[in-house]
Amino acid sequence: MLRILGMKSFHHFDITARRIRTIRTVIPYSKDNFQIKRGSYATVGDADIKHFENILPNGNQILLGLDETAGYNRDYFNYVLGLGEVVLRPRTTAQVSAILQHCNRRKLAVSVYGGNTGVCGGSIPVFDEIVLSMELMNGIESIDEYSGVLQCEAGCILGVLEEKLSQKGLIMPLDLGSKNSCHIGGNVATNAGGIRLMRYGNLQGSVLGLEAVKADGTVLDLMSRFRKDNTGYHLKNIFIGSEGTLGVMTRVAIACPPAPTTQNVLFLGVQNYESVLKTFIECKKRLGEILTSCELIDKDALQCCIEHLKRSSPIEEYPFYMLIETTGRNVEHDEQKVNDFLKQVLSSGIVADGVVANEPSKVKDLWQLRERIPDGTFSNNFCLTYDLSLPLGNFYDIVPAMKTRVGHLVKVVCGFGHIGDSNIHLNIAGDELTPEIRQLVDPYVYEFTSKLRGSVSAEHGIGLLKPKYLKYSKTNESIRLMQQIKAFMDPNGILNPYKVISN
Amino acid sequence: MLRILGMKSFHHFDITARRIRTIRTVIPYSKDNFQIKRGSYATVGDADIKHFENILPNGNQILLGLDETAGYNRDYFNYVLGLGEVVLRPRTTAQVSAILQHCNRRKLAVSVYGGNTGVCGGSIPVFDEIVLSMELMNGIESIDEYSGVLQCEAGCILGVLEEKLSQKGLIMPLDLGSKNSCHIGGNVATNAGGIRLMRYGNLQGSVLGLEAVKADGTVLDLMSRFRKDNTGYHLKNIFIGSEGTLGVMTRVAIACPPAPTTQNVLFLGVQNYESVLKTFIECKKRLGEILTSCELIDKDALQCCIEHLKRSSPIEEYPFYMLIETTGRNVEHDEQKVNDFLKQVLSSGIVADGVVANEPSKVKDLWQLRERIPDGTFSNNFCLTYDLSLPLGNFYDIVPAMKTRVGHLVKVVCGFGHIGDSNIHLNIAGDELTPEIRQLVDPYVYEFTSKLRGSVSAEHGIGLLKPKYLKYSKTNESIRLMQQIKAFMDPNGILNPYKVISN
Repeated sequence: MLRILGMKSFHHFDITARRIRTIRTVIPYSKDNFQIKRGSYATVGDADIKHFENILPNGNQILLGLDETAGYNRDYFNYVLGLGEVVLRPRTTAQVSAILQHCNRRKLAVSVYGGNTGVCGGSIPVFDEIVLSMELMNGIESIDEYSGVLQCEAGCILGVLEEKLSQKGLIMPLDLGSKNSCHIGGNVATNAGGIRLMRYGNLQGSVLGLEAVKADGTVLDLMSRFRKDNTGYHLKNIFIGSEGTLGVMTRVAIACPPAPTTQNVLFLGVQNYESVLKTFIECKKRLGEILTSCELIDKDALQCCIEHLKRSSPIEEYPFYMLIETTGRNVEHDEQKVNDFLKQVLSSGIVADGVVANEPSKVKDLWQLRERIPDGTFSNNFCLTYDLSLPLGNFYDIVPAMKTRVGHLVKVVCGFGHIGDSNIHLNIAGDELTPEIRQLVDPYVYEFTSKLRGSVSAEHGIGLLKPKYLKYSKTNESIRLMQQIKAFMDPNGILNPYKVISN
Repeated sequence: MLRILGMKSFHHFDITARRIRTIRTVIPYSKDNFQIKRGSYATVGDADIKHFENILPNGNQILLGLDETAGYNRDYFNYVLGLGEVVLRPRTTAQVSAILQHCNRRKLAVSVYGGNTGVCGGSIPVFDEIVLSMELMNGIESIDEYSGVLQCEAGCILGVLEEKLSQKGLIMPLDLGSKNSCHIGGNVATNAGGIRLMRYGNLQGSVLGLEAVKADGTVLDLMSRFRKDNTGYHLKNIFIGSEGTLGVMTRVAIACPPAPTTQNVLFLGVQNYESVLKTFIECKKRLGEILTSCELIDKDALQCCIEHLKRSSPIEEYPFYMLIETTGRNVEHDEQKVNDFLKQVLSSGIVADGVVANEPSKVKDLWQLRERIPDGTFSNNFCLTYDLSLPLGNFYDIVPAMKTRVGHLVKVVCGFGHIGDSNIHLNIAGDELTPEIRQLVDPYVYEFTSKLRGSVSAEHGIGLLKPKYLKYSKTNESIRLMQQIKAFMDPNGILNPYKVISN
């Protein structure tokens, strides 16, 4: 049963200006960041809808009108509000191909919609783009028990895959806080990071194959199931991390590691950053192959988190905390390695105090002290958040630098993140985001990162919010090549316009 | 002191036809495979040499004339003999850029030369291409002791890097038999696999950044040192595995894991392929995170090897042998895991017999039984060799199938390889390579692989020898896109012509 709602108002809806709004009191990304005009795309008409009805004959595959499509127009952080009045929900690659072929011919812009958990405004329409939602393409095709290779459709939810894999003694190579709603297609399209990356590497390595539909509807079947396949250019890798701007991912093949059976989480107090680094070196050396995560939390980040959770810290106050996780397959071996490590770092004085957990609920409790920090900082009226890769020697320098610059004007300046991957999150939160604060923060953080040749978006991607910051991590030549690749792959620019590459 | 030798004969040298020859009695790749005509490139003239002399002012950076350049025209396997009379040896990226800018303007074809260890004829000129040798760009720029990231020039020899890293307690994420001559730039350009891939993943994951010079001389500085950097398209990944046809790699940044301190190698006898698979599952489960390699060797492969090495097998004869390596950081833990595994597979009968070594010289002896198999098979008059990725359920089927087809016409049909990576090497060797044998083997192996959606070149790449087989692993749409990318990146087709993508 095709739901066509709001058809009458459809063509009367005025789409002349960009619409960006927020629900939070102060939106950290002001309208100044979005000097974007709607591209010269066609507008969806009755004949287009008719065409889509032929492509998608089954019920509930087309949603029309803002009443129906509202949920597809609001991003996770409420940074952006889209105006897409047409949502198409294909069930097959052939349907995706037919849709794109039509859109490309008609110059209709398309926004690819996964689990809508992106944090850079890349997941929803900006103006009236057609929303291509992958949610119905959620079939698990195969799990190879020998090689551990999973093949599935792009709309599968990460947590569902994790669940299915666990029945075969496997795990996904990535784990994210949003796993119960994010799609694997979106994960691959954004080259998602997360807390297991240190152990299992990034998706450029783990994704063995994929199927993508180009803007003109051409289906690219790159579904290798093999860790080794050197037959020509590695086309799949172009799509990984391209955020849906070069093609729509429809299927993926991923190498899944055997599931570990043991887990230990250490929560340590450390007196200074020098000791943090020493602890990191020591845990790599002593925990070696069972080390899965190494996270850093500073005093202010923990404070925000425990206030928000209304909990107390498991240990006394220290300038820094580290959360270290091991996973393995032998309880005694892992315990002994953990104990050896602790003995070493405690006796040498580089770690001041700590607790260890291996019981699942306790493990979860400790992880919350890291994972819920953003909730704590975002509970303020405003929160500026940065996702940086920085060399470990200078990893934490940005935090005291920002404290000096804006500490007196805001409530919180804190740093936390994946020190094991050289990835720090810097959050600056307070009551009122004044132009003064913005001016003191925004160019400085990016320039600081650029000087150290760091990444201004380590794991969050570019989306709608960050194209103008690309230049801080990429050279002009690289950005020009990206623009050329975009123009070459999608000459009409119909796929996820306004995102990643600024026009 | 610039060495200009053979200048007189230079312009008189007749380059009108392709020249391919071999030193081995029978070359497995007949001339029929090379229906290649020299492209319509310009010929190097005096003015060009003059120009190169300005770009490369220091001694020994230009070699001229076949007497001087002979070593740069013969590939490792003697499959191909090139006719490049000009070898340029830049020391800096700026020099590479200036050379390519000139060559592109003049339409002079260029063959990029690394350690010359490629096995698909991709490493040397086919006709009179200019040889761009990277050997003088061999500086190690930095090794970050915290993150384990190595930055170096592309001409560094893998074994030299390994040596330097070991002083910092790190290892390279890849290990190859050719490590004492292969260049890291060549490894990355060919997405080299090797025996550690199972543990540390492929280079698409480990290479964090690179610098490449495009055909027109544009320098692309993509030297990220971070495991997480989601700022736009992952351009570096286009170059990894492109075999020098899209750009010349000048620098790389690689994530290097901490060096393990323990090592065990198991050499096991197994009665049938079903038990091989069970053993593989069991070793993944019980050895888990310390498992580094899992190799398969069939009876005939071992026989070839030990005859060649004039050694005896460490265990009695079985249809299959498996070589399993663990590396870790705790001798007792690893030993206990190895013993638990052995107890399980021996008591359940899936493994019939075996030996274990942890003493370096014994470990090396056992590895020779796997690594020297090619030497054994290649000591025959001819040896056809295939490098396939196949699903593990059908991994070994190709060997008995080929025995049935040509076993009576040849001396050896054997299978061996990286079962842990689903990568089998099939070698067929004998006295005389008749048209009948060729006809029975060549289309069949590729068609068999194609039906199972395997890879017809798992780790060896395409080079000059395999462009015509690409179609067995890649769809027409994919090959077309590769051709478009080549044309887009290198419009004059000057970089490594005749290779990877057939024109």
